[in-house]
Amino acid sequence: MVLLRRGFATMASLKKASKVVCIGRNYADHITELSSARPKQPFFFLKPPTSILLPGEGPVIQPKGVNLHYEVELALIIGKRLKDFEATDDATALDAVESYALSIDMTARNIQNEAKKKGLPWDISKGFDTFLPISNIIPKSAIPDPHNIELYLTVNNEIRQNDSTELMLFRIPRILSDISKVMTLEAGDIVITGTPKGVGPVVPGDVMRAGIKINGKELEEAKIEVG
Amino acid sequence: MVLLRRGFATMASLKKASKVVCIGRNYADHITELSSARPKQPFFFLKPPTSILLPGEGPVIQPKGVNLHYEVELALIIGKRLKDFEATDDATALDAVESYALSIDMTARNIQNEAKKKGLPWDISKGFDTFLPISNIIPKSAIPDPHNIELYLTVNNEIRQNDSTELMLFRIPRILSDISKVMTLEAGDIVITGTPKGVGPVVPGDVMRAGIKINGKELEEAKIEVG
Ligand SMILES: [Mg+2]
Ligand SMILES: [Mg+2]
Ligand SMILES: [Mg+2]
Repeated sequence: MVLLRRGFATMASLKKASKVVCIGRNYADHITELSSARPKQPFFFLKPPTSILLPGEGPVIQPKGVNLHYEVELALIIGKRLKDFEATDDATALDAVESYALSIDMTARNIQNEAKKKGLPWDISKGFDTFLPISNIIPKSAIPDPHNIELYLTVNNEIRQNDSTELMLFRIPRILSDISKVMTLEAGDIVITGTPKGVGPVVPGDVMRAGIKINGKELEEAKIEVG
Repeated sequence: MVLLRRGFATMASLKKASKVVCIGRNYADHITELSSARPKQPFFFLKPPTSILLPGEGPVIQPKGVNLHYEVELALIIGKRLKDFEATDDATALDAVESYALSIDMTARNIQNEAKKKGLPWDISKGFDTFLPISNIIPKSAIPDPHNIELYLTVNNEIRQNDSTELMLFRIPRILSDISKVMTLEAGDIVITGTPKGVGPVVPGDVMRAGIKINGKELEEAKIEVG
Protein backbone atom coordinates (compact mmCIF):
# COMPACT_ATOMS: atom_id res chain seq x y z
CA MET A 1 0.00 0.00 0.00
CA VAL A 2 1.23 3.44 -0.89
CA LEU A 3 0.50 6.22 1.56
CA LEU A 4 0.35 9.67 0.06
CA ARG A 5 1.55 12.35 2.40
CA ARG A 6 -1.54 14.26 3.50
CA GLY A 7 -1.48 17.93 2.60
CA PHE A 8 1.36 17.77 0.11
CA ALA A 9 0.81 20.87 -2.01
CA THR A 10 0.65 20.64 -5.78
CA MET A 11 0.12 23.44 -8.29
CA ALA A 12 -3.46 22.21 -8.80
CA SER A 13 -4.11 22.21 -5.06
CA LEU A 14 -3.00 25.84 -4.66
CA LYS A 15 -6.24 27.10 -6.16
CA LYS A 16 -8.16 24.95 -3.70
CA ALA A 17 -6.64 26.78 -0.73
CA SER A 18 -9.48 27.51 1.68
CA LYS A 19 -8.04 30.97 2.14
CA VAL A 20 -5.22 33.32 1.23
CA VAL A 21 -4.18 35.56 4.13
CA CYS A 22 -2.09 38.63 3.35
CA ILE A 23 0.05 40.65 5.74
CA GLY A 24 0.05 44.42 5.17
CA ARG A 25 2.85 46.93 5.84
CA ASN A 26 5.54 44.48 6.86
CA TYR A 27 8.60 46.34 5.52
CA ALA A 28 9.47 49.78 6.93
CA ASP A 29 10.54 51.40 3.64
CA HIS A 30 7.34 50.30 1.91
CA ILE A 31 5.31 51.93 4.69
CA THR A 32 7.25 55.16 4.10
CA GLU A 33 6.73 55.11 0.33
CA LEU A 34 2.94 54.82 0.72
CA SER A 35 2.89 57.39 3.58
CA SER A 36 1.22 54.79 5.80
CA ALA A 37 1.35 54.42 9.57
CA ARG A 38 3.62 51.73 11.01
CA PRO A 39 1.46 49.01 12.58
CA LYS A 40 1.95 48.09 16.25
CA GLN A 41 0.96 44.53 15.43
CA PRO A 42 0.62 42.57 12.18
CA PHE A 43 -2.63 43.25 10.34
CA PHE A 44 -3.97 41.17 7.52
CA PHE A 45 -6.66 40.82 4.89
CA LEU A 46 -7.93 38.10 2.56
CA LYS A 47 -7.62 37.57 -1.17
CA PRO A 48 -10.11 35.11 -2.73
CA PRO A 49 -8.61 31.87 -4.12
CA THR A 50 -10.09 32.93 -7.48
CA SER A 51 -7.40 35.64 -7.67
CA ILE A 52 -4.63 33.02 -7.95
CA LEU A 53 -2.87 32.98 -11.35
CA LEU A 54 -0.70 29.91 -11.87
CA PRO A 55 2.39 29.88 -14.13
CA GLY A 56 1.33 29.81 -17.78
CA GLU A 57 -2.26 30.85 -17.11
CA GLY A 58 -1.85 34.13 -18.95
CA PRO A 59 -1.56 37.78 -18.05
CA VAL A 60 -2.84 39.77 -15.12
CA ILE A 61 -6.06 41.42 -16.32
CA GLN A 62 -6.19 45.15 -15.63
CA PRO A 63 -9.77 46.10 -14.78
CA LYS A 64 -11.07 49.23 -16.51
CA GLY A 65 -10.11 52.44 -14.73
CA VAL A 66 -7.76 50.67 -12.34
CA ASN A 67 -4.27 51.86 -11.38
CA LEU A 68 -2.62 48.44 -11.11
CA HIS A 69 0.35 48.00 -8.73
CA TYR A 70 2.66 45.03 -8.16
CA GLU A 71 3.87 43.91 -4.70
CA VAL A 72 6.33 40.99 -4.68
CA GLU A 73 5.91 38.80 -1.58
CA LEU A 74 7.15 35.53 -0.13
CA ALA A 75 4.25 33.05 0.20
CA LEU A 76 4.03 30.34 2.86
CA ILE A 77 2.02 27.20 2.15
CA ILE A 78 0.68 25.95 5.45
CA GLY A 79 1.23 22.30 6.31
CA LYS A 80 -1.16 21.70 9.17
CA ARG A 81 -4.12 23.11 11.06
CA LEU A 82 -3.07 26.00 13.29
CA LYS A 83 -5.44 27.38 15.90
CA ASP A 84 -4.17 29.65 18.71
CA PHE A 85 -0.69 28.69 17.58
CA GLU A 86 2.11 29.78 19.91
CA ALA A 87 5.36 30.09 18.00
CA THR A 88 8.09 32.07 19.64
CA ASP A 89 10.96 30.62 17.64
CA ASP A 90 11.64 30.01 13.97
CA ALA A 91 11.85 26.22 14.32
CA THR A 92 8.34 25.87 15.74
CA ALA A 93 6.88 28.23 13.15
CA LEU A 94 8.62 26.68 10.18
CA ASP A 95 7.54 23.22 11.23
CA ALA A 96 4.01 24.39 10.34
CA VAL A 97 5.08 25.53 6.87
CA GLU A 98 4.95 22.86 4.19
CA SER A 99 6.56 24.73 1.33
CA TYR A 100 7.03 28.19 -0.17
CA ALA A 101 6.18 30.09 -3.33
CA LEU A 102 6.82 33.54 -4.66
CA SER A 103 3.77 35.71 -5.33
CA ILE A 104 2.78 39.13 -6.59
CA ASP A 105 0.01 40.79 -4.57
CA MET A 106 -1.56 42.82 -7.39
CA THR A 107 -3.46 45.79 -6.04
CA ALA A 108 -5.94 48.24 -7.59
CA ARG A 109 -4.17 51.15 -5.90
CA ASN A 110 -6.74 53.83 -6.73
CA ILE A 111 -9.60 51.65 -5.44
CA GLN A 112 -7.57 50.84 -2.32
CA ASN A 113 -6.77 54.52 -1.68
CA GLU A 114 -10.45 55.41 -2.03
CA ALA A 115 -11.39 52.58 0.36
CA LYS A 116 -8.81 53.75 2.92
CA LYS A 117 -10.14 57.29 2.75
CA LYS A 118 -13.73 56.16 3.22
CA GLY A 119 -12.98 53.47 5.82
CA LEU A 120 -14.26 50.75 3.48
CA PRO A 121 -12.95 47.16 3.08
CA TRP A 122 -9.86 46.51 0.95
CA ASP A 123 -11.20 43.27 -0.50
CA ILE A 124 -12.34 44.61 -3.89
CA SER A 125 -9.00 46.37 -4.50
CA LYS A 126 -7.13 43.16 -3.73
CA GLY A 127 -9.52 40.54 -5.04
CA PHE A 128 -9.96 40.75 -8.81
CA ASP A 129 -9.43 37.58 -10.84
CA THR A 130 -5.71 37.15 -11.79
CA PHE A 131 -4.55 39.46 -8.95
CA LEU A 132 -2.28 36.82 -7.37
CA PRO A 133 0.34 35.52 -9.80
CA ILE A 134 2.25 32.75 -8.06
CA SER A 135 5.41 30.79 -8.87
CA ASN A 136 5.91 27.06 -8.84
CA ILE A 137 6.01 25.49 -5.42
CA ILE A 138 9.39 25.86 -3.74
CA PRO A 139 10.36 22.83 -1.63
CA LYS A 140 11.13 23.75 1.94
CA SER A 141 14.65 22.38 1.63
CA ALA A 142 15.46 25.01 -1.01
CA ILE A 143 15.05 27.85 1.51
CA PRO A 144 17.12 27.12 4.62
CA ASP A 145 16.25 30.50 6.18
CA PRO A 146 13.15 32.35 4.90
CA HIS A 147 14.22 35.46 6.83
CA ASN A 148 17.38 35.74 4.78
CA ILE A 149 16.53 35.60 1.09
CA GLU A 150 16.39 38.30 -1.54
CA LEU A 151 13.11 39.06 -3.32
CA TYR A 152 13.24 40.96 -6.59
CA LEU A 153 10.82 42.18 -9.21
CA THR A 154 11.54 43.77 -12.58
CA VAL A 155 9.21 45.50 -15.01
CA ASN A 156 10.37 45.32 -18.64
CA ASN A 157 13.76 44.23 -17.28
CA GLU A 158 14.16 47.30 -15.05
CA ILE A 159 14.62 46.44 -11.41
CA ARG A 160 11.84 47.84 -9.21
CA GLN A 161 11.93 45.80 -6.00
CA ASN A 162 14.97 44.10 -4.52
CA ASP A 163 15.27 43.57 -0.78
CA SER A 164 16.01 40.91 1.79
CA THR A 165 13.28 39.30 3.87
CA GLU A 166 15.47 40.09 6.87
CA LEU A 167 13.77 43.51 6.70
CA MET A 168 10.37 42.08 7.71
CA LEU A 169 8.96 44.00 10.70
CA PHE A 170 7.02 40.97 11.92
CA ARG A 171 8.67 37.64 11.27
CA ILE A 172 7.01 34.33 10.41
CA PRO A 173 6.49 33.05 14.01
CA ARG A 174 4.63 36.23 14.97
CA ILE A 175 2.64 36.30 11.71
CA LEU A 176 1.40 32.71 12.04
CA SER A 177 0.64 33.09 15.76
CA ASP A 178 -1.34 36.28 15.26
CA ILE A 179 -3.38 35.00 12.31
CA SER A 180 -4.17 31.71 14.03
CA LYS A 181 -5.58 33.55 17.04
CA VAL A 182 -8.18 35.16 14.78
CA MET A 183 -8.82 32.55 12.11
CA THR A 184 -7.72 28.92 12.15
CA LEU A 185 -5.21 28.21 9.39
CA GLU A 186 -5.86 24.98 7.47
CA ALA A 187 -3.36 22.78 5.64
CA GLY A 188 -3.01 24.20 2.15
CA ASP A 189 -3.84 27.78 3.14
CA ILE A 190 -1.53 30.41 1.72
CA VAL A 191 -0.02 33.26 3.74
CA ILE A 192 1.74 36.10 1.94
CA THR A 193 4.13 38.02 4.07
CA GLY A 194 4.20 41.62 2.86
CA THR A 195 6.16 43.53 0.26
CA PRO A 196 9.43 45.49 0.41
CA LYS A 197 9.77 49.01 -1.04
CA GLY A 198 9.53 49.79 -4.74
CA VAL A 199 5.88 49.05 -5.54
CA GLY A 200 4.55 50.84 -8.60
CA PRO A 201 2.23 50.71 -11.59
CA VAL A 202 2.11 48.37 -14.56
CA VAL A 203 0.05 48.67 -17.72
CA PRO A 204 -1.01 46.06 -20.28
CA GLY A 205 2.01 44.99 -22.32
CA ASP A 206 4.46 45.38 -19.44
CA VAL A 207 6.29 42.21 -18.46
CA MET A 208 6.87 41.52 -14.77
CA ARG A 209 9.61 39.11 -13.75
CA ALA A 210 10.15 38.20 -10.15
CA GLY A 211 12.33 35.79 -8.27
CA ILE A 212 14.28 34.85 -5.20
CA LYS A 213 18.04 34.87 -4.74
CA ILE A 214 19.82 33.06 -1.94
CA ASN A 215 23.42 34.19 -1.41
CA GLY A 216 23.21 35.77 -4.85
CA LYS A 217 22.07 32.54 -6.52
CA GLU A 218 18.77 32.46 -8.40
CA LEU A 219 16.17 29.93 -7.22
CA GLU A 220 14.70 28.31 -10.35
CA GLU A 221 11.33 27.32 -8.83
CA ALA A 222 10.68 30.87 -7.65
CA LYS A 223 10.76 32.52 -11.07
CA ILE A 224 7.64 34.35 -12.20
CA GLU A 225 7.22 35.86 -15.65
CA VAL A 226 3.84 37.38 -16.30
CA GLY A 227 2.32 39.98 -18.62
CA MET B 1 -26.93 4.25 -12.26
CA VAL B 2 -27.68 7.04 -9.87
CA LEU B 3 -26.48 10.49 -10.83
CA LEU B 4 -25.94 12.89 -7.98
CA ARG B 5 -26.75 16.45 -8.91
CA ARG B 6 -23.46 18.31 -9.18
CA GLY B 7 -23.12 21.18 -6.75
CA PHE B 8 -26.02 20.21 -4.51
CA ALA B 9 -25.17 21.91 -1.25
CA THR B 10 -25.09 19.94 2.00
CA MET B 11 -24.35 21.17 5.50
CA ALA B 12 -20.92 19.55 5.26
CA SER B 13 -20.20 21.25 1.94
CA LEU B 14 -20.96 24.71 3.33
CA LYS B 15 -17.63 24.83 5.16
CA LYS B 16 -15.88 23.91 1.94
CA ALA B 17 -17.16 27.04 0.22
CA SER B 18 -14.22 28.55 -1.64
CA LYS B 19 -15.32 31.94 -0.40
CA VAL B 20 -17.93 33.85 1.55
CA VAL B 21 -18.69 37.26 0.06
CA CYS B 22 -20.53 39.79 2.23
CA ILE B 23 -22.42 42.87 1.11
CA GLY B 24 -22.09 45.91 3.37
CA ARG B 25 -24.63 48.70 3.99
CA ASN B 26 -27.50 47.25 2.01
CA TYR B 27 -30.41 48.53 4.14
CA ALA B 28 -30.95 52.30 4.52
CA ASP B 29 -31.96 52.30 8.20
CA HIS B 30 -28.89 50.22 9.14
CA ILE B 31 -26.68 52.78 7.39
CA THR B 32 -28.32 55.51 9.46
CA GLU B 33 -27.89 53.65 12.76
CA LEU B 34 -24.13 53.26 12.19
CA SER B 35 -23.80 56.85 10.86
CA SER B 36 -22.32 55.44 7.66
CA ALA B 37 -22.40 56.89 4.16
CA ARG B 38 -24.87 55.39 1.68
CA PRO B 39 -22.91 53.53 -1.01
CA LYS B 40 -23.41 54.49 -4.68
CA GLN B 41 -22.76 50.87 -5.65
CA PRO B 42 -22.67 47.61 -3.69
CA PHE B 43 -19.42 47.06 -1.81
CA PHE B 44 -18.33 43.80 -0.32
CA PHE B 45 -15.75 42.02 1.78
CA LEU B 46 -14.77 38.42 2.55
CA LYS B 47 -15.22 36.24 5.60
CA PRO B 48 -13.00 33.13 5.79
CA PRO B 49 -14.81 29.77 5.53
CA THR B 50 -13.32 28.99 8.97
CA SER B 51 -15.75 31.54 10.45
CA ILE B 52 -18.75 29.34 9.55
CA LEU B 53 -20.58 27.88 12.57
CA LEU B 54 -23.03 25.12 11.65
CA PRO B 55 -26.16 24.33 13.69
CA GLY B 56 -25.19 22.48 16.87
CA GLU B 57 -21.50 23.36 16.69
CA GLY B 58 -21.64 25.43 19.85
CA PRO B 59 -21.60 29.08 20.77
CA VAL B 60 -20.08 32.11 19.09
CA ILE B 61 -16.76 32.70 20.83
CA GLN B 62 -16.27 36.29 21.98
CA PRO B 63 -12.60 37.22 21.58
CA LYS B 64 -11.07 39.04 24.54
CA GLY B 65 -11.69 42.79 24.47
CA VAL B 66 -14.15 42.55 21.60
CA ASN B 67 -17.48 44.35 21.37
CA LEU B 68 -19.42 41.62 19.59
CA HIS B 69 -22.38 42.61 17.34
CA TYR B 70 -24.93 40.46 15.49
CA GLU B 71 -26.17 41.20 11.95
CA VAL B 72 -28.86 38.86 10.62
CA GLU B 73 -28.59 38.33 6.85
CA LEU B 74 -30.08 36.25 4.07
CA ALA B 75 -27.40 33.96 2.55
CA LEU B 76 -27.38 32.79 -1.06
CA ILE B 77 -25.66 29.53 -1.94
CA ILE B 78 -24.38 29.85 -5.48
CA GLY B 79 -25.25 27.08 -7.94
CA LYS B 80 -22.84 27.69 -10.79
CA ARG B 81 -19.73 29.53 -11.87
CA LEU B 82 -20.45 33.23 -12.46
CA LYS B 83 -17.92 35.46 -14.19
CA ASP B 84 -18.91 38.87 -15.59
CA PHE B 85 -22.49 37.81 -14.95
CA GLU B 86 -25.13 40.10 -16.44
CA ALA B 87 -28.37 39.75 -14.53
CA THR B 88 -30.88 42.51 -15.00
CA ASP B 89 -33.93 40.56 -13.85
CA ASP B 90 -34.74 38.37 -10.86
CA ALA B 91 -35.29 35.22 -12.93
CA THR B 92 -31.78 35.26 -14.43
CA ALA B 93 -30.16 36.01 -11.08
CA LEU B 94 -32.12 33.41 -9.13
CA ASP B 95 -31.33 30.76 -11.71
CA ALA B 96 -27.73 31.05 -10.46
CA VAL B 97 -28.77 30.53 -6.84
CA GLU B 98 -28.94 26.92 -5.71
CA SER B 99 -30.43 27.37 -2.28
CA TYR B 100 -30.61 29.76 0.67
CA ALA B 101 -29.68 29.90 4.34
CA LEU B 102 -30.03 32.36 7.15
CA SER B 103 -26.81 33.69 8.67
CA ILE B 104 -25.54 36.02 11.36
CA ASP B 105 -22.60 38.18 10.29
CA MET B 106 -20.91 38.50 13.70
CA THR B 107 -18.73 41.59 13.85
CA ALA B 108 -16.06 42.79 16.30
CA ARG B 109 -17.53 46.30 16.20
CA ASN B 110 -14.75 48.03 18.13
CA ILE B 111 -12.08 46.47 15.90
CA GLN B 112 -14.09 47.39 12.80
CA ASN B 113 -14.55 51.00 13.98
CA GLU B 114 -10.82 51.29 14.63
CA ALA B 115 -10.08 49.83 11.17
CA LYS B 116 -12.49 52.28 9.51
CA LYS B 117 -10.86 55.21 11.27
CA LYS B 118 -7.36 54.10 10.25
CA GLY B 119 -8.28 53.03 6.72
CA LEU B 120 -7.32 49.42 7.49
CA PRO B 121 -8.96 46.20 6.22
CA TRP B 122 -12.13 44.90 7.86
CA ASP B 123 -11.12 41.25 7.61
CA ILE B 124 -9.94 40.75 11.18
CA SER B 125 -13.12 42.31 12.62
CA LYS B 126 -15.26 40.01 10.49
CA GLY B 127 -13.14 36.88 10.37
CA PHE B 128 -12.77 35.27 13.80
CA ASP B 129 -13.63 31.58 14.13
CA THR B 130 -17.40 31.10 14.84
CA PHE B 131 -18.28 34.55 13.43
CA LEU B 132 -20.74 33.19 10.86
CA PRO B 133 -23.51 31.13 12.46
CA ILE B 134 -25.63 29.67 9.68
CA SER B 135 -28.98 27.85 9.54
CA ASN B 136 -29.78 24.63 7.80
CA ILE B 137 -29.96 24.85 4.03
CA ILE B 138 -33.27 26.26 2.80
CA PRO B 139 -34.45 24.68 -0.45
CA LYS B 140 -35.06 27.21 -3.17
CA SER B 141 -38.69 26.18 -3.45
CA ALA B 142 -39.31 27.35 0.13
CA ILE B 143 -38.59 30.98 -0.78
CA PRO B 144 -40.66 31.96 -3.82
CA ASP B 145 -39.47 35.59 -3.65
CA PRO B 146 -36.22 36.34 -1.73
CA HIS B 147 -36.96 40.07 -1.95
CA ASN B 148 -40.14 39.66 0.05
CA ILE B 149 -39.39 37.73 3.23
CA GLU B 150 -39.07 38.88 6.81
CA LEU B 151 -35.76 38.42 8.66
CA TYR B 152 -35.79 38.56 12.45
CA LEU B 153 -33.32 38.19 15.28
CA THR B 154 -33.97 38.09 19.02
CA VAL B 155 -31.54 38.27 21.94
CA ASN B 156 -32.81 36.51 25.06
CA ASN B 157 -36.24 36.50 23.44
CA GLU B 158 -36.32 40.27 22.90
CA ILE B 159 -36.79 41.26 19.31
CA ARG B 160 -33.83 43.26 17.93
CA GLN B 161 -34.04 42.98 14.17
CA ASN B 162 -37.20 42.45 12.12
CA ASP B 163 -37.46 43.75 8.58
CA SER B 164 -38.36 42.69 5.10
CA THR B 165 -35.76 41.98 2.43
CA GLU B 166 -37.80 44.29 0.19
CA LEU B 167 -35.80 47.06 1.91
CA MET B 168 -32.52 45.96 0.26
CA LEU B 169 -30.89 48.92 -1.51
CA PHE B 170 -29.19 46.65 -4.06
CA ARG B 171 -31.14 43.57 -5.00
CA ILE B 172 -29.82 40.12 -5.82
CA PRO B 173 -29.34 40.61 -9.60
CA ARG B 174 -27.18 43.70 -9.00
CA ILE B 175 -25.27 42.05 -6.15
CA LEU B 176 -24.33 38.94 -8.15
CA SER B 177 -23.46 40.94 -11.26
CA ASP B 178 -21.22 43.34 -9.38
CA ILE B 179 -19.36 40.66 -7.40
CA SER B 180 -18.83 38.48 -10.48
CA LYS B 181 -17.20 41.39 -12.33
CA VAL B 182 -14.52 41.53 -9.63
CA MET B 183 -14.16 37.93 -8.49
CA THR B 184 -15.58 34.85 -10.20
CA LEU B 185 -18.21 33.15 -8.04
CA GLU B 186 -17.91 29.37 -7.86
CA ALA B 187 -20.63 26.79 -7.22
CA GLY B 188 -20.93 26.44 -3.45
CA ASP B 189 -19.76 29.97 -2.69
CA ILE B 190 -21.87 31.85 -0.16
CA VAL B 191 -23.06 35.43 -0.58
CA ILE B 192 -24.60 37.23 2.38
CA THR B 193 -26.77 40.15 1.44
CA GLY B 194 -26.52 42.75 4.20
CA THR B 195 -28.36 43.39 7.44
CA PRO B 196 -31.43 45.47 8.29
CA LYS B 197 -31.47 47.93 11.22
CA GLY B 198 -31.27 46.85 14.85
CA VAL B 199 -27.71 45.52 15.15
CA GLY B 200 -26.30 45.55 18.65
CA PRO B 201 -24.06 43.83 21.17
CA VAL B 202 -24.22 40.37 22.71
CA VAL B 203 -22.20 38.97 25.59
CA PRO B 204 -21.44 35.37 26.61
CA GLY B 205 -24.58 33.76 27.98
CA ASP B 206 -26.93 35.67 25.68
CA VAL B 207 -29.01 33.50 23.37
CA MET B 208 -29.58 34.67 19.80
CA ARG B 209 -32.48 33.27 17.85
CA ALA B 210 -33.04 34.20 14.24
CA GLY B 211 -35.40 33.16 11.52
CA ILE B 212 -37.35 33.94 8.40
CA LYS B 213 -41.09 34.50 8.07
CA ILE B 214 -42.96 34.38 4.80
CA ASN B 215 -46.42 35.92 4.93
CA GLY B 216 -46.16 35.70 8.70
CA LYS B 217 -45.33 31.98 8.64
CA GLU B 218 -42.10 30.73 10.21
CA LEU B 219 -39.72 28.82 7.92
CA GLU B 220 -38.47 25.81 9.90
CA GLU B 221 -35.17 25.34 8.01
CA ALA B 222 -34.17 28.96 8.61
CA LYS B 223 -34.17 28.83 12.40
CA ILE B 224 -30.94 29.62 14.19
CA GLU B 225 -30.45 29.29 17.94
CA VAL B 226 -26.96 30.04 19.15
CA GLY B 227 -25.25 31.10 22.37
MG1 LIG C 1 0.78 43.17 -0.21
MG1 LIG D 1 -11.04 44.21 4.03
MG1 LIG E 1 -23.06 42.36 7.56
